[in-house]
Amino acid sequence: MAKELKDLTKRAENYSQWYNELVVKADLAEQSAVRGCMVIKPYGYAIWEKMQQHLDRMFKETGVQNAYFPLLIPKSFLSREADHVEGFAKECAVVTHYRLKNAPDGSGVVVDPEAKLEEEFVIRPTSETIIWNTYKNWIHSYRDLPLLINQWANVFRWEMRTRMFLRTAEFLWQEGHTAHATMQEAMEEAIRMVNVYADFAEKYMAVPVIKGTKSANERFAGAIETYTIEAMMQDGKALQSGTSHFLGQNFAKAFDVTFVNKENKPEYVWATSWGVSTRLMGALIMTHSDDNGLVLPPHLAPIQVVIVPIHKNAEQLKAITEVVEPIVLQLREMGISVKYDDADNRRPGFKFADYELKGVPVRLALGARDIENGTIEIMRRDTLEKSEVEREGIAARVRDLLEDIQNNIYRKALRHREEHTYVANSYDEFKELIEKGGFVLAHWDGTTETEERVKDETKATIRCIPLDGDKTPGTCIFTGKPSAQRVIFARNY
Amino acid sequence: MAKELKDLTKRAENYSQWYNELVVKADLAEQSAVRGCMVIKPYGYAIWEKMQQHLDRMFKETGVQNAYFPLLIPKSFLSREADHVEGFAKECAVVTHYRLKNAPDGSGVVVDPEAKLEEEFVIRPTSETIIWNTYKNWIHSYRDLPLLINQWANVFRWEMRTRMFLRTAEFLWQEGHTAHATMQEAMEEAIRMVNVYADFAEKYMAVPVIKGTKSANERFAGAIETYTIEAMMQDGKALQSGTSHFLGQNFAKAFDVTFVNKENKPEYVWATSWGVSTRLMGALIMTHSDDNGLVLPPHLAPIQVVIVPIHKNAEQLKAITEVVEPIVLQLREMGISVKYDDADNRRPGFKFADYELKGVPVRLALGARDIENGTIEIMRRDTLEKSEVEREGIAARVRDLLEDIQNNIYRKALRHREEHTYVANSYDEFKELIEKGGFVLAHWDGTTETEERVKDETKATIRCIPLDGDKTPGTCIFTGKPSAQRVIFARNY
Repeated sequence: MAKELKDLTKRAENYSQWYNELVVKADLAEQSAVRGCMVIKPYGYAIWEKMQQHLDRMFKETGVQNAYFPLLIPKSFLSREADHVEGFAKECAVVTHYRLKNAPDGSGVVVDPEAKLEEEFVIRPTSETIIWNTYKNWIHSYRDLPLLINQWANVFRWEMRTRMFLRTAEFLWQEGHTAHATMQEAMEEAIRMVNVYADFAEKYMAVPVIKGTKSANERFAGAIETYTIEAMMQDGKALQSGTSHFLGQNFAKAFDVTFVNKENKPEYVWATSWGVSTRLMGALIMTHSDDNGLVLPPHLAPIQVVIVPIHKNAEQLKAITEVVEPIVLQLREMGISVKYDDADNRRPGFKFADYELKGVPVRLALGARDIENGTIEIMRRDTLEKSEVEREGIAARVRDLLEDIQNNIYRKALRHREEHTYVANSYDEFKELIEKGGFVLAHWDGTTETEERVKDETKATIRCIPLDGDKTPGTCIFTGKPSAQRVIFARNY
Repeated sequence: MAKELKDLTKRAENYSQWYNELVVKADLAEQSAVRGCMVIKPYGYAIWEKMQQHLDRMFKETGVQNAYFPLLIPKSFLSREADHVEGFAKECAVVTHYRLKNAPDGSGVVVDPEAKLEEEFVIRPTSETIIWNTYKNWIHSYRDLPLLINQWANVFRWEMRTRMFLRTAEFLWQEGHTAHATMQEAMEEAIRMVNVYADFAEKYMAVPVIKGTKSANERFAGAIETYTIEAMMQDGKALQSGTSHFLGQNFAKAFDVTFVNKENKPEYVWATSWGVSTRLMGALIMTHSDDNGLVLPPHLAPIQVVIVPIHKNAEQLKAITEVVEPIVLQLREMGISVKYDDADNRRPGFKFADYELKGVPVRLALGARDIENGTIEIMRRDTLEKSEVEREGIAARVRDLLEDIQNNIYRKALRHREEHTYVANSYDEFKELIEKGGFVLAHWDGTTETEERVKDETKATIRCIPLDGDKTPGTCIFTGKPSAQRVIFARNY
């Protein structure tokens, strides 16, 4: 067994430590020399690239186009929208100078005091301000609308407590920014995009999510309504995995963006913004992986199938390779990514453990006896089940197995969520259930005050007000006041 | 004729102004509110995305993997390599604080003096330092080598004089950073990548380039050897379009990156880095475009074919649409991107001018008479030639025409370069020829002093010492000293 695997903390012992170790041992990412920033390593980045490809296509299918806006935002832009500055100013990286110079004592370089900027810039924590300042020149008439733009970019928020992928100072994301002629259209767009996120999470990541709106307290700084997808991790905690905001006319008013409507009257433009980030990597890792390492959904795995030869000498390897080559070709023709690992410097047992750690969905192994018998060993990563099968028709079998794994891990995650979703009808019951870890459906009176008191006492927050599901009214578990529907409480990442 | 087109400055009048106007009028990019930074608009970004796709595939075919490293670089890292800091410190964006706060007078936000960083960061102008600091932990043995990593990223250099795409403060690029066990291998890698760049420029951008090495004066800060591809613009000026650096052991020594070789001895690692940027967009625009607007190579055009109906009423439009739909399908099945522009709010003449301005390679147009006659009008953007042809077999004809355009604009650019490449055998002759605009092949004694004197007197620099071509020695046109081979002098962007 590989050393890395032997050393992996068990989930039951310390879930949080298991996660941190797994990110490093599976070669996904590591801490960088810059506090709070990570290096995304090739294996982790390959998964992110697959996410990007699918999301980008899904966005474009709704008519969205990509563009690119500046990294730096003039400090004054941030203040234009009152809630927005309140939400972001406290964690900004501030650029104050445009030059370094040699230190007089020869010890290196220092900031050149003569190169102080007249107005400071912040590194974008999000781009609503610079983008709406740009849209002012792009939008004049209803004929210029809707404007559906996305950018793939890095953003920076100087977070104090960071965890790789889940919360880092710099992170990679996409941010969509759309402009519309009517409130109705903008709201529909915000909902359309949260639906795209939910589809992506479920079909590609195999992560079941609950769609809902955020309470006022958890809304994006500057939004009228925030839609969210919430996933449950294996420890029962919630992970907010993507958000889509209906911004009303807030940014249009802050940046004076108006258009002439069909009746030739000026109106402020309606806006949305929406984003998912490398945080999705955290959701992916924490939803499916186990004490042996990563479990990747086949639809996002950089290597879907690995083939390992088991041989005693070069002659045996040659015979195995002759059998493997056509299988590799068949799999590639089916669009399946496959690696034949015939490297001689690692033993099969080490390779097995390493590919398990890395979450490769299907492993095939062939020895001298398999060559004689026309068989092959097949192992599925999700259940770790191993079986010896006929080699005849192996490619089709692998293709079907990949789909089966994709569905199986989704169903497993869904079952886990269902088993850890509770209904509380009193505050005492709520407090007991929230300790078990999971989602608790409870009535809430709709006030921020109640939400904050519950949070102070139980560390649970309202993850969302579900869009689908039971809409029966009731009374708040905390205040006894009327409640329109049950909401989801949980502890969260 | 569309107003935008009528207003476009002619190349012969003012080439530089023509370029600046074209970038804006063709909707490629615009100046942003941040000095020296541009907004890349959807149409421009779509071309950049196509470039990225091809380059990314070409890199991966050589075994390169993508990863991501932090945006911010600790100030002290920059000083570790003496030439490197000299080259980059003077144009760095410096992050000194991590928070803003409300201004006491309520006027907005100000930098919070209590949030001063202990050590400042610079926004990466290039990532050798942070990457080699990371490689220290990744490389221990010869078995860890070669390490072939690329990142797609934004970088920032506080340039004083900027021009969209050609020289902007923030720009998008890819930077490859490889690590090798031997000098030989690293040099081969640097050459392999400049060859990839040349292939990409010629096959996709249809831009002929000359491969060569840079003189010491023009080398990357920290490199032992810089390989470059140089293209000639229509005004005869050179545009450096991509560079690949052999870095020797400079960064390995600066960041103490050693490996144990096969003989179990520690050695410093050998390095390369290589990059192309959104500057390629400038090369693309300036090489092919004309007084009517952009001319895009079919291999990179976001829209390869546009179809415009010419109709007097809804009935005619319906008949045209019925004929167009199967053509659109056939083209799409051939992998050709096609747009059927049946929008009713712009007249055909306006559309024609607009798609010419945007450089769409092939335009098809159909009127009521064409429907009767079984014909279609076809226009190629490169020559503006228009002809009426049989509709039968139009898809195959368009496919062939796209390849013809791709080849034709390459040949045209190559012919232009050949016609504007001169040989100078004396300094007087050199001064006369350099005024004509173009490349001048001349002997040079190999010293920085001579290069700088020639530059001071003629504004021409050595663009490269060509890898291919005539290697006959001679005597320097300026000093009369021995010269190993002719080099290329030109004025440049």
